[in-house]
Amino acid sequence: MTSITLEDARRIIAAAEKKATEIGQPMNIAVVDAGGNLVAHVRQDGAWIGSVNISINKAWTSKAFDISTKDLGDNSQPGQQFFGIQNTNGGKVAIFAGGIPLSRDGEVVGAVGVSGGSGEQDHSVAEAGVAGF
Amino acid sequence: MTSITLEDARRIIAAAEKKATEIGQPMNIAVVDAGGNLVAHVRQDGAWIGSVNISINKAWTSKAFDISTKDLGDNSQPGQQFFGIQNTNGGKVAIFAGGIPLSRDGEVVGAVGVSGGSGEQDHSVAEAGVAGF
Amino acid sequence: MTSITLEDARRIIAAAEKKATEIGQPMNIAVVDAGGNLVAHVRQDGAWIGSVNISINKAWTSKAFDISTKDLGDNSQPGQQFFGIQNTNGGKVAIFAGGIPLSRDGEVVGAVGVSGGSGEQDHSVAEAGVAGF
Amino acid sequence: MTSITLEDARRIIAAAEKKATEIGQPMNIAVVDAGGNLVAHVRQDGAWIGSVNISINKAWTSKAFDISTKDLGDNSQPGQQFFGIQNTNGGKVAIFAGGIPLSRDGEVVGAVGVSGGSGEQDHSVAEAGVAGF
Repeated sequence: MTSITLEDARRIIAAAEKKATEIGQPMNIAVVDAGGNLVAHVRQDGAWIGSVNISINKAWTSKAFDISTKDLGDNSQPGQQFFGIQNTNGGKVAIFAGGIPLSRDGEVVGAVGVSGGSGEQDHSVAEAGVAGF
Repeated sequence: MTSITLEDARRIIAAAEKKATEIGQPMNIAVVDAGGNLVAHVRQDGAWIGSVNISINKAWTSKAFDISTKDLGDNSQPGQQFFGIQNTNGGKVAIFAGGIPLSRDGEVVGAVGVSGGSGEQDHSVAEAGVAGF
Repeated sequence: MTSITLEDARRIIAAAEKKATEIGQPMNIAVVDAGGNLVAHVRQDGAWIGSVNISINKAWTSKAFDISTKDLGDNSQPGQQFFGIQNTNGGKVAIFAGGIPLSRDGEVVGAVGVSGGSGEQDHSVAEAGVAGF
Repeated sequence: MTSITLEDARRIIAAAEKKATEIGQPMNIAVVDAGGNLVAHVRQDGAWIGSVNISINKAWTSKAFDISTKDLGDNSQPGQQFFGIQNTNGGKVAIFAGGIPLSRDGEVVGAVGVSGGSGEQDHSVAEAGVAGF
């Protein structure tokens, strides 16, 4: 199975860390593989401890549904088609920005999840991680 | 390690209890340290038993994200950037007023959480606790 | 209902703390009321963070079954009549020494739970708490 | 605050990875700080996905009780003083070898947790991590 190696994850995390440092917001960054299982996680010094779990869950969610958590969130507001999805899967579904799928040859092979700032900041750091892949 | 000692926690709780007695609303009051771990908790006579857990979770949440639960709540309503955060971290995230971070030399070193009345009452008792620190 | 007041809990905790200090082992000490609900908890400086939950669960268990957790533990070993009880009640049942019921006029009205040392130490500190009641 | 930085964690993980590679057994390696919160995790290519959680829990357990999970396990067998501890703390207590506390100036400031091989292998890789600290 074409998936994310630890070397891939480290390259993605390095790119995300660089962006987080640039914007001055310490972050939790997590990478999962094609099975949604964690490959690597880092918490930058000073990043929120409550975001450890969220970064991992954002990565898991993005792979689990092959979608960014930002887009999933838009569809999970009250009245929207996926409202309630955040209560499934034992609390692992994150519906706010910061998780983005990782694709290779048109196939989703993993995901990156970022948590530690505003939704916009988290998403932009995740995008930097994807670019590093 | 700069964190909350039991003596600190008792001083904070005493100040919060005094305020709760003044406003005539018995409260649960909890204090956590820099790692989010409980240092002390009291339930005043007559306070809600369902608020034991909530006071501890409010304290944890405020330290976990370095923010008051009142402000976090404002950002976690439907359509806001953190909507869904209350489903993360195994149910420990409280998004209504009553949790406030405790800072020393500009660094968050713990938090106090209060539950037992209205959101306004909980927050004001937590503020009294912070002032006692 | 005759139960444990916060003042009772503080007297119990003070007696337990005194004993813990004497034996030189920092402890977590928790007191629950007749309903098994937490009245107060303290973690002495340097006590194990993993014992926060355990002290509360030992107190809950002792009230829940009106028995010391030491005695319950003897009956919960493999082959004994209560083996498996530790998997019930959502993980709140503690089956090792440190929890003791609090009785008044022959009725169990609460319990104290202690965690932070060996089983023998925890039990002796809990006994000191009971004596303080 | 004297705790584990991300740089510390990376040095510990690098030393543990080197050992795992030497013995030819891919591992999950996790490092937590003084509050028991995750600082970093890696899963080497080919390491068990069921060990992601275990490595993190071993690290948490070692900090939570300031003891190696190997020693805690010896005290948690049927008939021993801590039998039942594995059912506390919401399933986070690991009682088999692979978790070791990290100390600085005589104080436990974090822990490393390793999972992916036999108990002996996990413990030796964790020891290599400690040596790297």
